[in-house]
Amino acid sequence: MMQAGETSGPDWRLYARSSSDDKAGVMAILAGYEALVQSKQRPGVNIKFFFEGEEEKGSPHLSEIVEGNRALLASDLWIICDGPVHQSGQKQVVFGARGDVNVGLTVYGPKRPLHSGHYGNWAPNPALALAQLLASMKDSTGRVTIEGFYDDVIPLTAKEQQALSRVPNLDAAIQKELSFARADGGGQNLSELINQPSLNINGMRSANVGAQAANVIPTTAEATLDLRLVLGNDWERQVAKVVSHIRRQGFFVTTQEPTDAERARYPRIVRLTPHTGYNAERTSMDLPLAQEVVVAVQRTSTQPVVQVPTSGGSLPLHVFKKINATTLTVPVANYDNNQHAENENIRLGNLWDGMETMAAIMQLK
Amino acid sequence: MMQAGETSGPDWRLYARSSSDDKAGVMAILAGYEALVQSKQRPGVNIKFFFEGEEEKGSPHLSEIVEGNRALLASDLWIICDGPVHQSGQKQVVFGARGDVNVGLTVYGPKRPLHSGHYGNWAPNPALALAQLLASMKDSTGRVTIEGFYDDVIPLTAKEQQALSRVPNLDAAIQKELSFARADGGGQNLSELINQPSLNINGMRSANVGAQAANVIPTTAEATLDLRLVLGNDWERQVAKVVSHIRRQGFFVTTQEPTDAERARYPRIVRLTPHTGYNAERTSMDLPLAQEVVVAVQRTSTQPVVQVPTSGGSLPLHVFKKINATTLTVPVANYDNNQHAENENIRLGNLWDGMETMAAIMQLK
Repeated sequence: MMQAGETSGPDWRLYARSSSDDKAGVMAILAGYEALVQSKQRPGVNIKFFFEGEEEKGSPHLSEIVEGNRALLASDLWIICDGPVHQSGQKQVVFGARGDVNVGLTVYGPKRPLHSGHYGNWAPNPALALAQLLASMKDSTGRVTIEGFYDDVIPLTAKEQQALSRVPNLDAAIQKELSFARADGGGQNLSELINQPSLNINGMRSANVGAQAANVIPTTAEATLDLRLVLGNDWERQVAKVVSHIRRQGFFVTTQEPTDAERARYPRIVRLTPHTGYNAERTSMDLPLAQEVVVAVQRTSTQPVVQVPTSGGSLPLHVFKKINATTLTVPVANYDNNQHAENENIRLGNLWDGMETMAAIMQLK
Repeated sequence: MMQAGETSGPDWRLYARSSSDDKAGVMAILAGYEALVQSKQRPGVNIKFFFEGEEEKGSPHLSEIVEGNRALLASDLWIICDGPVHQSGQKQVVFGARGDVNVGLTVYGPKRPLHSGHYGNWAPNPALALAQLLASMKDSTGRVTIEGFYDDVIPLTAKEQQALSRVPNLDAAIQKELSFARADGGGQNLSELINQPSLNINGMRSANVGAQAANVIPTTAEATLDLRLVLGNDWERQVAKVVSHIRRQGFFVTTQEPTDAERARYPRIVRLTPHTGYNAERTSMDLPLAQEVVVAVQRTSTQPVVQVPTSGGSLPLHVFKKINATTLTVPVANYDNNQHAENENIRLGNLWDGMETMAAIMQLK
């Protein structure tokens, strides 16, 4: 909200690729520290900085670096600055993160593109086969219908459930802003749903649509799935459930380009593109040091700090677990930051608040 | 099949956009006529040439031109040179063509792209909704499940059925070449299936896949459908059946970008992009002049000329019908020409045979 004559303000936004995810976090940490130095205040604790630039591609080198530098990285607590604050704008301390694994699917049709008039009732269409496969994975309420999908989940503790019940529920307002009439989840709210494993279609493609479309039977149809995991899920076991489901729909599953012999034998073929994933992690809400962080963050805000057992998004926390590190996530970005998509942005007010938050945590006694 | 030292041969192919559809037809007509002139042979009939360049975009001006030039275009028979010869390589005379209409579908999700972790069990995914909609349109044998889809069809005459039974059946060989294990159609052959209306997914898209995929809930999902029509079908009635089916799946159907009020009211919304279509046409196999054309084409080949009631592909024959023209289609292109797709090509032997075919028809007495 700008006043006449103002040239900047807290609601201004900086638009840039990764402006909120995760340049905002890096800058909040560095500027928060710089503020302490400039104002000649000493941090209350020893601070080690650790920045990683490969998280969006699955952090392929993080494990090697962390495990190779155990002594250097020894610490009482890791504070991770990633993800958004609560939709209410209230600051947030997050005790865990969902795990994540992507699965690429390619369904095969005729080996070369065919005229849809001359072959359209006869040659099988891979876009239809993929649509039928994806449609079989969820019911009309968005609940995953893959056998055993919700098994393995470790229930929330009483304290975690209590924290969850205190999370402000802004679902109606967010839904209105996002302009859709019915949420998935059969009436459960967003905070509850985030504590369950999920399956999302990130993207889907076969030939072309709209002005680029042609009257063809496509040769392939592709989709990319995103599976989020909660405590108790194992990413390889979760992918195995999806694969079993695909097989039950009558598909032959391969991880290679199918051979002519396979194409001649199996009416429906899916090629699975394997991705590396990782499991969810969660720090106990009973940990005294964690509660000290909540108090420190609370000191910078008149609004209650929201405490959530897990973020909906994912972080490779399992890597830090390997060196017995305890982690807490303290995010700074606005919730409506379009992360991972076009027009990603950081709200200037959030960046500023984030610096204060980080400086306050550095002053822990 | 080239011999050492050869620099060209009948199996060589010329690769270029529209090389077979429909530059090959145009060049066969012109070169066939040129051959008659060069060899000082007089055509047996008066010839009028008519070339149209907008067929692939629905021939938006053809009707105006044809109806505005009735006297100039008066004729006993139109010979149309489009489409492929039979897969056996045998020459073909085609008595009709299927009608055609495209339908664009856009399904809507949240108004801005969302992080699939933070909102992935809650915000509805338009790719899933589109997959469920498309999956509902056909059963596992490829038969269209839309109510009344196969109604309205005028059955083939006894003569047409007899001609159909004489069409060489190369389905097994073509299927092997195209490398798929099971054809749609529940055991009916390709020639039979072409005499039924069809529904094909030309393309499907939502966000990105593969290396371009991101962990997002897409905002929209699109598909382009191709409906082929046979004699008796009306293109507007056929689209109306599809629209009724979409409504029965719980979708609100609009032809505009949905308003916020519509988005707030309807859980599932499809935007229909209307396309102009046209109906199928068929010339009687009893027509004496048509049989004279078959005889003329037969004179250029030692293999039997294949006669089919309709091509699988479409042509705007209805336009010529308006001026009471009688049409026959005599194609020249090889069947494996990749028309409407990448690597479109014309086999040189087909181009050469096509010139002979066209010259022979021009010599009708």
